[in-house]
Amino acid sequence: MASFDSYFLMNPDDVKLYVREKIAGFANAGKLSCKEIGDGNLNYVFRVLDEETGSSIIVKQAGETARISDDFKLSTNRIRIESNILKLQGELAPGLVPKVFLYDDTMNCCVMEDLSDHTILRTALLEQRIFPNLAEELSTFMVNTLLLTTDVVLEHKEKKELVKDYINPELCEISEDLVYTEPFNDCNNRNELFPANKEWIEKTIYGDDRLRLEAAKLKFAFMTNAQALVHGDLHTGSIFVKEDSTKVIDPEFAFYGPIGYDVGNVVANLIFAWANYTFTGSSNKEYINWLESTMTETVDLFSKKFLASWQENVTDIMAKEKGFEKWYLDGVLADTAGIAGLELTRRIVGLAKVKDITSISDEKSRVQAERVCLETAKAFILERDSYKNGQDFLDTLKKVYNRLKE
Amino acid sequence: MASFDSYFLMNPDDVKLYVREKIAGFANAGKLSCKEIGDGNLNYVFRVLDEETGSSIIVKQAGETARISDDFKLSTNRIRIESNILKLQGELAPGLVPKVFLYDDTMNCCVMEDLSDHTILRTALLEQRIFPNLAEELSTFMVNTLLLTTDVVLEHKEKKELVKDYINPELCEISEDLVYTEPFNDCNNRNELFPANKEWIEKTIYGDDRLRLEAAKLKFAFMTNAQALVHGDLHTGSIFVKEDSTKVIDPEFAFYGPIGYDVGNVVANLIFAWANYTFTGSSNKEYINWLESTMTETVDLFSKKFLASWQENVTDIMAKEKGFEKWYLDGVLADTAGIAGLELTRRIVGLAKVKDITSISDEKSRVQAERVCLETAKAFILERDSYKNGQDFLDTLKKVYNRLKE
Repeated sequence: MASFDSYFLMNPDDVKLYVREKIAGFANAGKLSCKEIGDGNLNYVFRVLDEETGSSIIVKQAGETARISDDFKLSTNRIRIESNILKLQGELAPGLVPKVFLYDDTMNCCVMEDLSDHTILRTALLEQRIFPNLAEELSTFMVNTLLLTTDVVLEHKEKKELVKDYINPELCEISEDLVYTEPFNDCNNRNELFPANKEWIEKTIYGDDRLRLEAAKLKFAFMTNAQALVHGDLHTGSIFVKEDSTKVIDPEFAFYGPIGYDVGNVVANLIFAWANYTFTGSSNKEYINWLESTMTETVDLFSKKFLASWQENVTDIMAKEKGFEKWYLDGVLADTAGIAGLELTRRIVGLAKVKDITSISDEKSRVQAERVCLETAKAFILERDSYKNGQDFLDTLKKVYNRLKE
Repeated sequence: MASFDSYFLMNPDDVKLYVREKIAGFANAGKLSCKEIGDGNLNYVFRVLDEETGSSIIVKQAGETARISDDFKLSTNRIRIESNILKLQGELAPGLVPKVFLYDDTMNCCVMEDLSDHTILRTALLEQRIFPNLAEELSTFMVNTLLLTTDVVLEHKEKKELVKDYINPELCEISEDLVYTEPFNDCNNRNELFPANKEWIEKTIYGDDRLRLEAAKLKFAFMTNAQALVHGDLHTGSIFVKEDSTKVIDPEFAFYGPIGYDVGNVVANLIFAWANYTFTGSSNKEYINWLESTMTETVDLFSKKFLASWQENVTDIMAKEKGFEKWYLDGVLADTAGIAGLELTRRIVGLAKVKDITSISDEKSRVQAERVCLETAKAFILERDSYKNGQDFLDTLKKVYNRLKE
């Protein structure tokens, strides 16, 4: 019988024993089944089901290398970060993250609420499903977890302790490489260009001095601007949905960084869904209208709730200076545009792709989809100071689309 | 006989025993004398002299409240920060900081090189003494300790560990309050305005909406921009000098913050020396010429060495993008101007004064000195993006002086 007092990578049978031993509600369960269901890049995710009662639970364990490549050696520290931050986010944004039942720093695992009745948002968007509350809930999640962890609101010494707790060198390095470096120069020879777009991308992205310079500026902001406790990987694969529920998962990349890092990732990944719809010749008008309004409303509700929460929660006396909140929000929106541009770029040029684009089977359509995303990305990055509301983002996307269509 | 295995605040007799017990060279010393010579705000500084050999040593111990006010409760963590950072700065900028012989985390003290043959730079400047190497050595100190601790140069994971080690909540809070908040609104009723200037300051500083807004922006940059391991209190009272030697001391405020925080403090405190000279009717032309060229050269040598060191030491591939180093340095110089303005303001308006100003005995002269410093400060803060070299700083100072003289 396995003992859990020193670390090893569990298999499904180990996990069943583990759950019986550690989680009261499963101690006397009848037949348990367990399956590894992880499809992320970093962790092993087991679902344990009590076949008699139907109740289920998730065990997430950190391995010592990333699943996508043994080249990424990782400390298992990330599972501590994930467990702690889920608890904190659960307090700040109740109901919008899974519940955590146990964090085990020996086995480097975390036992949490099973969300198998939810679907990954990326998959649901490719199926053209509509979630009327999505912009509402995502904007609430972001305002609550982000603004409430800044120096604007938190007591400054408490904030600095959080900065220290969430220093996340290894996972930040992955983003520094994959998001902020390789897409612009392929310096590690890991980029994967769609062959029919190779030349165009080399010229349009690698070959644009101004773009590379602006990406460099954004890179150093990512590494130095300890603004808020960001999720750090808030794409549509990190969001679980069902009709009436939104749950943000997988915060293992969390650290103190720019607020726009999260907002920009959401915007970019909604654009990927838009590109998939547009370049697979879909004609579900209701869906595309909802998708576009979700994109603009996510930004606009974010801004609106951000300013409302600011009025209610700001504690720093200098942050109360007239005009400061507008200046601060403008900075967040500029970062949002810049980072949306980086995410659009790296998912097409870099190592980690998104299904929204790779599943476009017609070569010509995929070429066009990638070009629309990349030209939009460039406008976001180069003109990032000019984005003030959701419509500004959508206008650029449509302008680029119409120009490339001609 | 005292035992040093649990913390207590030492008196000079305790310190003599301590040094015999802990420092090999003093174990068998004959008659020792010891005197408390601290005049800083936070720590107790003892000088121990071996009266036979003449060799001497400094023991610096942290108390649990600040010396200037029991209101400031402080963790003794700062002496760990000071000891560690002196060692690190000694490696990065050899010969420009005192040597550390021992750090004791029980007694919260640090044993270091005695610099009694040096003078505090502030005092020396008020005596109109000239130090031909000052700009050269201060610019080397700043470039080496600052640029070499950024993400531009350091491996990023190593830099993040340093950020964590030097999180400094309590001492940063002192700066946040005294430098970035109280001078603009007297929110804690601790400001001390020179009576003859009271009304003018209330109108010119407290009453300027634009100034308060820009100060708020700088405050949040101070709290979030983890750019380099800054000294954090680099005024002329933290610099020891003799003819051929410059030693930067007292780094207990060190943390990862904006590079311009150090450069700006040096500039502001040279301006205080300039104001003392100008408003005490001095006529030592050689001195004032040296002082003015030290001010401009500190900035210009900083920039020149910064760019040279960049070429030599930069490791981040995105930091090598054409134009990035100029953009980065421009940001540092803007911060330098902004922070020089804040330091000029807070030393006149806030709780902690400088002798350069308070020793001007003629009331009218002091009023004028304060106004020149404060108007210069406002220009630095409000127009900080336009400062590109040392002469820009001096030009503002002289323009303000000539305008107020009329």
